[in-house]
Amino acid sequence: MVEKTNGAAGAPPEGSGALLPEWVSRRAYLSPEKTALIDGPRAWSFRELDQAAEAAARRLWRAGVRPGGHVALLAQNRAEYVVALCALMGLGAVALPLNTRLAPAELGWQLADGEAAFLLHDQAHEGLARQALAALPPGSARPLLLPMEDAAGAPSGSAAPSPAGQRKAGDPALEGPPEAPVRRAVVSLDEVQGIIYTSGTTGKPKGALLTYGNHWWGAIGSGINLGGHAGDVWLLAVPLFHVSGLSIVMRSLIHGFAVLLHRRFDPAAANQAIDRQGVTIVSVVSTMLARMIEERGGRPYPPTLRAVLAGGGPVPKPLLEAALALGAPVLQTYGMTETASQAATLPPEDALRKLGSAGKPLFPTEIQVDAPPGEVGEILVRGPNVSPGYWRRPGEATAARLDGWLRTGDLGYFDEEGYLYVVDRRADLIISGGENVYPAEVESVLREHPAVADAGVVPRPDPRWGQVPVAFVVARQAASERLKAELIRHCTARLARYKVPADVRFLPELPRNAAGKLSRRRLLELL
Amino acid sequence: MVEKTNGAAGAPPEGSGALLPEWVSRRAYLSPEKTALIDGPRAWSFRELDQAAEAAARRLWRAGVRPGGHVALLAQNRAEYVVALCALMGLGAVALPLNTRLAPAELGWQLADGEAAFLLHDQAHEGLARQALAALPPGSARPLLLPMEDAAGAPSGSAAPSPAGQRKAGDPALEGPPEAPVRRAVVSLDEVQGIIYTSGTTGKPKGALLTYGNHWWGAIGSGINLGGHAGDVWLLAVPLFHVSGLSIVMRSLIHGFAVLLHRRFDPAAANQAIDRQGVTIVSVVSTMLARMIEERGGRPYPPTLRAVLAGGGPVPKPLLEAALALGAPVLQTYGMTETASQAATLPPEDALRKLGSAGKPLFPTEIQVDAPPGEVGEILVRGPNVSPGYWRRPGEATAARLDGWLRTGDLGYFDEEGYLYVVDRRADLIISGGENVYPAEVESVLREHPAVADAGVVPRPDPRWGQVPVAFVVARQAASERLKAELIRHCTARLARYKVPADVRFLPELPRNAAGKLSRRRLLELL
Repeated sequence: MVEKTNGAAGAPPEGSGALLPEWVSRRAYLSPEKTALIDGPRAWSFRELDQAAEAAARRLWRAGVRPGGHVALLAQNRAEYVVALCALMGLGAVALPLNTRLAPAELGWQLADGEAAFLLHDQAHEGLARQALAALPPGSARPLLLPMEDAAGAPSGSAAPSPAGQRKAGDPALEGPPEAPVRRAVVSLDEVQGIIYTSGTTGKPKGALLTYGNHWWGAIGSGINLGGHAGDVWLLAVPLFHVSGLSIVMRSLIHGFAVLLHRRFDPAAANQAIDRQGVTIVSVVSTMLARMIEERGGRPYPPTLRAVLAGGGPVPKPLLEAALALGAPVLQTYGMTETASQAATLPPEDALRKLGSAGKPLFPTEIQVDAPPGEVGEILVRGPNVSPGYWRRPGEATAARLDGWLRTGDLGYFDEEGYLYVVDRRADLIISGGENVYPAEVESVLREHPAVADAGVVPRPDPRWGQVPVAFVVARQAASERLKAELIRHCTARLARYKVPADVRFLPELPRNAAGKLSRRRLLELL
Repeated sequence: MVEKTNGAAGAPPEGSGALLPEWVSRRAYLSPEKTALIDGPRAWSFRELDQAAEAAARRLWRAGVRPGGHVALLAQNRAEYVVALCALMGLGAVALPLNTRLAPAELGWQLADGEAAFLLHDQAHEGLARQALAALPPGSARPLLLPMEDAAGAPSGSAAPSPAGQRKAGDPALEGPPEAPVRRAVVSLDEVQGIIYTSGTTGKPKGALLTYGNHWWGAIGSGINLGGHAGDVWLLAVPLFHVSGLSIVMRSLIHGFAVLLHRRFDPAAANQAIDRQGVTIVSVVSTMLARMIEERGGRPYPPTLRAVLAGGGPVPKPLLEAALALGAPVLQTYGMTETASQAATLPPEDALRKLGSAGKPLFPTEIQVDAPPGEVGEILVRGPNVSPGYWRRPGEATAARLDGWLRTGDLGYFDEEGYLYVVDRRADLIISGGENVYPAEVESVLREHPAVADAGVVPRPDPRWGQVPVAFVVARQAASERLKAELIRHCTARLARYKVPADVRFLPELPRNAAGKLSRRRLLELL
């Protein structure tokens, strides 16, 4: 049917959100021959990705996956992960990406809380998947284990091209005899695409609901900010199980750029990809950027690299300056799971002038600071990219909203030109003698010292002041009482007295979660 | 208030559509110093455009314009027109752009039908505005005349910059003492932005409702198709009173590119702007393109020109080839008022391979052909950029829709790769001896003859065949019986017998409306 070539077949689902053609088949129809995905030596065009998603959707359907069902994913970055996400979109099933660094008990808790009926895992995580099932809370339903390579394996590259967007009987990408279609032609922006448990650096994990609309508007806001060039290649070396990685896949389907997928972050591989594979955009967190700049050894970046999106917390100024000196256009961003990744980003033209700022909100997103003008207060976010709430926690969504505003718990301020500066996470705030101490500020000062590779600051109870800040430091030289005294002198010269760490302890490395965020909770446990 | 710097103040309006920050102040906040608008020697940054819109909104408010009120505009392209559109967005009033080429009686009818309470006109159209009021149907309410230069005049360039998006008491762009804000901070995508009477090349004019959502989604679909480059400049030489011109202004506010406004189309000026003012995108109709290529005299276009969007009907192949030979990347588009401009566009990479096609639908838009696969049928369009209906004609909206699909009345087909070819307007279909004759096909063949500058084909009643096609031709040489016979031979050699014009008549030029569309209705009157 010619009518099907643009994905128009099928009755629209109910819901007040706009209906759009299903993104995978629509993108395959619009730009079938463009590169969609590169994973090591393998590459997929959008047509091939669509065919792989079709085949995977049929396999998942046969295994029992149905619209609205919850399917957990436990795997490292790999093409099959992307194919599985595309297949779930076609089926209308809900994805639950799981953090591979969690302990079995934590995974078991998320599987039960998220009501996962299936658990797709790659071979490397089969053992962890079985441990997670063994650690399910008593009385929980047991998800069915499905090997990702089988269920979502991409077909061999020999699949013959089929007319744009059409899936014909006899298509070699399909197994067995012709069947009724299992993928839908349209999606509603109101539908839930996935549930992502927030990182848990502070507080108890909860499953943030992300709709197709959240992803759509996030991708549109990002596109308006960054623009789009015909040959864009986005290096995805952050985890696919975090919103940072997932959102790159969604943006690729919408805007039609290529995703270069790295299975894990390796600074040399990332730098090499930028040099040799035409990477134009890369998403990093501060620690990734630091390792890339260190590995780079002073070689400038090619002009093809047009944006280094740095999220997951503030980037220290010395690192920003070092990156910009090598021609890496670092754009600090501010965002979180609940905002479908980016909520604010520094425009390219302000990278130098507004060093350290997270920029301005994306076009469709509003940001407020709950404080008098110019002062630090809680950051509030509103817009169509903001999650409608948390899975099975309607009360928390209500508590966190005021007239549609998400209370982020983060602290920040706007400068007089309307640029957002994120100061810290509210949960980490240290109050000492009635004065506020923002750990990130103290950490930034410590990192400016040549002997400091990394630093984390947490509160210690104090009989006189209530709390005092204590610093954990990764030193570039041998730890000593003399260095400790030197660092305290360094801070005293740069900070108000009440902000200077009461103690400095040395660690070989700081605890960070998979997204690279400092885990202050684990530092507190060390105290 | 810091909270106001990103336009977040104010209660959201009711409605099920997404709420977005008001576009003019949002864009001024995001990129205040970028060039927004160039009109001859005058230029406005987005900050200055926002200030001009604020001043104009206050003047219109004082004149009595209120949210939901209808304000007609009768003017040629000029910066004040853009400022007025921006002011009406801020006020929440509905724009009724009027075609300056209409007769007073037609304008009077539209003013009455559209329930315009105000008529903003420029000095050049004051006489026509008064004639239109004199021609109002009996019993109609009389709109208040407001000179556009006074009501929406841009302030002098001396206005001091104010902090991003903020409008302070004492701002030199405001007249008189501080007042309560008249512009709102957010718009709902469900709200009606404007009513545009469709061109009336065929049939009776009716006012298509265009919502902010229609414009938003049209701009997003266009942006996904074309990408966005930091230095984009869009040449706007089509009328602002048509959706083609209006939609460029909306896209500029959303994506942040500069609009280079030409007061009227002049091929030499357009070519010069491309050479000297960094134009990257230009919107044309076929006849505009033909005049530009002719004026060009074989000089190639600079590589900065990255898209020539050609709408308003099919572009003859010889013209497409001539343009491409000069390096003008012509992208045929298909769209109409009811789809907020573009619905389909040929992707840049297919310009040569799919010459003559209108390409594929924009990402959020679905297109069907109401016919068996591969055959010509009516083109149906569905998507969030499609108008919700017509002003005061709820029945027509219902009649034109089937499960959300707009019946366009246009004829086309998809090729086997899913590319849309627009064959003709259904209303122009000639049926001769039971066979279908598509005028555009005959016209295209006539235009391939070196002696033919332009051609229009219409039906003439015939006792034997029901209808026969008759051609009106603008010749490049002296009209003669010999040329007429030669053209009929030319057609006979290229077309089925029943498609060959029964007669050829010569005209100095063909009747076209302001958008450059051939008016077959006026040709029929000549018969």
